[in-house]
Amino acid sequence: MSRNLVDELLSSRMRGAQPSAVREILKVAERPEVISFAGGLPAPELFPVEEISRAVQEVLASQGGPALQYGVTEGYVPLREWIAVRLRARGTASSSEQVLITTGSQQGIDLVAKLFLDPGDAVAVEAPTYVAALQAFAAYEADLLEVPGDDGGMDVDALEVLLQRRRVKLIYVIPDFQNPRGTTLEGARRRRLVELARHHGAFILEDDPYGELRFRGAPEVPLSAIGPDHVIRLGTFSKTLAPGLRIGWLHAPVEVVRRIAIAKQSADLHTPTLTQRAAAQLLKTFDYAGHLARIRRSYGERCGAMLAALELELPAGARWTRPDGGLFLWLELPPRVTDRALFRHAIARNVAVVPGSAFYARRGPGRDRFVRLNFSNQTVARIGEGVRRLASAMVPGVELATAPVPITA
Amino acid sequence: MSRNLVDELLSSRMRGAQPSAVREILKVAERPEVISFAGGLPAPELFPVEEISRAVQEVLASQGGPALQYGVTEGYVPLREWIAVRLRARGTASSSEQVLITTGSQQGIDLVAKLFLDPGDAVAVEAPTYVAALQAFAAYEADLLEVPGDDGGMDVDALEVLLQRRRVKLIYVIPDFQNPRGTTLEGARRRRLVELARHHGAFILEDDPYGELRFRGAPEVPLSAIGPDHVIRLGTFSKTLAPGLRIGWLHAPVEVVRRIAIAKQSADLHTPTLTQRAAAQLLKTFDYAGHLARIRRSYGERCGAMLAALELELPAGARWTRPDGGLFLWLELPPRVTDRALFRHAIARNVAVVPGSAFYARRGPGRDRFVRLNFSNQTVARIGEGVRRLASAMVPGVELATAPVPITA
Repeated sequence: MSRNLVDELLSSRMRGAQPSAVREILKVAERPEVISFAGGLPAPELFPVEEISRAVQEVLASQGGPALQYGVTEGYVPLREWIAVRLRARGTASSSEQVLITTGSQQGIDLVAKLFLDPGDAVAVEAPTYVAALQAFAAYEADLLEVPGDDGGMDVDALEVLLQRRRVKLIYVIPDFQNPRGTTLEGARRRRLVELARHHGAFILEDDPYGELRFRGAPEVPLSAIGPDHVIRLGTFSKTLAPGLRIGWLHAPVEVVRRIAIAKQSADLHTPTLTQRAAAQLLKTFDYAGHLARIRRSYGERCGAMLAALELELPAGARWTRPDGGLFLWLELPPRVTDRALFRHAIARNVAVVPGSAFYARRGPGRDRFVRLNFSNQTVARIGEGVRRLASAMVPGVELATAPVPITA
Repeated sequence: MSRNLVDELLSSRMRGAQPSAVREILKVAERPEVISFAGGLPAPELFPVEEISRAVQEVLASQGGPALQYGVTEGYVPLREWIAVRLRARGTASSSEQVLITTGSQQGIDLVAKLFLDPGDAVAVEAPTYVAALQAFAAYEADLLEVPGDDGGMDVDALEVLLQRRRVKLIYVIPDFQNPRGTTLEGARRRRLVELARHHGAFILEDDPYGELRFRGAPEVPLSAIGPDHVIRLGTFSKTLAPGLRIGWLHAPVEVVRRIAIAKQSADLHTPTLTQRAAAQLLKTFDYAGHLARIRRSYGERCGAMLAALELELPAGARWTRPDGGLFLWLELPPRVTDRALFRHAIARNVAVVPGSAFYARRGPGRDRFVRLNFSNQTVARIGEGVRRLASAMVPGVELATAPVPITA
């Protein structure tokens, strides 16, 4: 009865919404006997647990009232200042007025979508890209226009063709160590991308959860440094301190920040004051650079172990990206192996991956030929064992007779 | 330049959005010399600061990894269970599957609006009501239909007339110690309200931030206990533990919870795991009943002090509500005194109130004849002094020549 009422009253935006395939798969992958390459989880053994505990204690001992009281929507000023300083150090002209704290950078995507998108408005996205960004745009009934990419990131020529044909409001891009492909947008393409946004009057939504996790090569310039007036940049502590804090941020022109603050007021009033103040307190004394170096070293080793194992174990015809940082690589399957078949064979062998089809806004030929592999959340030893199991699961053309896994295509 | 691009690309939902008048006024009211009756802040001296600090330490010492890792969208299961038990104790049939943790109960309002409202869909609201609920519904381009109320809460006869005329998807109500009026919905009206929702196929959004703060009289039955299939109930720790934790919850039929979880995935993935686990840890050993009794006693004293001072100080023609709990009372101004004029005269005398016009979805005759007074955030002594200043600011018919205060009418 309630079921019927819900269906009857549902908004058109939520009518087709399905739970994230990735999150559903993660539930299967949680079983302890499973070696999971499926999630996008950072390594918990690298969380600065004691330092966070001490920071919370210090904040509550010295500023218990304000740390537990309502706060301003834009966020805790010293934390916004710390972020602005860090953005400036990487070449982006920023001030604390240009920074707004979000409840994870996922909220940044949602608020930007809420601010700009009417039903039918066009958003250009890489194909493939971050699933929950696709969901956030879809929840505002956006028209998702896919732009292909390669090892150098989004194909800006293809984007230009698209922009000439169609009015696009937002261009969503993960320039560093893209999710799911692990690729990085080339410097020349970055400049071209900003020029295109400027020429066609669009905003670039630069999502940068992984930029600090570079374990090889020199950093590329952030899009926000190239085109300050046309770029909204998202960052987060989820991959560097801890995701459980849910502290992200948005850097943008002040006029965007002002309006995002209005949207955030009605979304959740503000991000928790306690965790914001604890993060600000932590960063006063913590060796953040040393901490990042440890994460980079560890993820570099794990990525290296995964690449070596893939080289050793995988049958002919399989190919994969070679990331310079981040959490993921993208595996192209050998002939006659499809992503869902592999997922099922793999889970039967206690190894989990995410079928690549999940990362596209729509179905298409050849899109079932990939899986995403995460290397940050398993030890080197388990990575080797997991890849061996995965290789043994690559049985061409054989479908297992199991219930289909729900995939958002 | 960026300004123009923002205006050009803005979604229609955000085109008219203004910052909350209440939040703008709070900035003025923050000056230390101001006695503020303006905010909706709980008393920080009643926050269980040490207990929260200890709970965070315990959680991080014993479960540091999971407490800082990504969590499930629906929330931390032991916390959902605690809430379900508490709901059952107050007569609502609930299980943890029917409870979803939100980033403050404001997010509950936003997600329910996102789930159900297409542009033009009707939402019935009390006039006056909580400003940020009006903003949340407006952000989904809802048509806000106002229902009058009196000292017994929403006028259900007027609601019935409305429901006969117009298809309404949601009925938003704060049954206990309503914001801004401090009134409580009568028992008979509660049953009638649920019948009307059932008959007309609408959901009631029962927002209950203040229900635990009753300092006089016996509790009324929750709407969720009367009409489990037609009520979505919101609760929060903001007024009982601390708002800076940003932990609220939603109780609803499982089918609603399932779909709200999908909406929340793209909104912020999940509410911070650290604060959720700390709250669950705290509630294991904390004397929550004793803590609530302290808050009730304090707010009861403060409310009593305000009522006594109003009686003593205010000129003839002023009238006010007499709340049985919560944070607010609603003051009807004496003849020829308007809310904005009073606000200006009052702030010149270092006392702050919120003009009543802010709490209506639209302007209307006589709506400038009220102000909201908060009694939870000032000591008894300062309440007396503040009301004296306020009385001296009630200068009939005299407008101060100052810049107008932004009011969302």
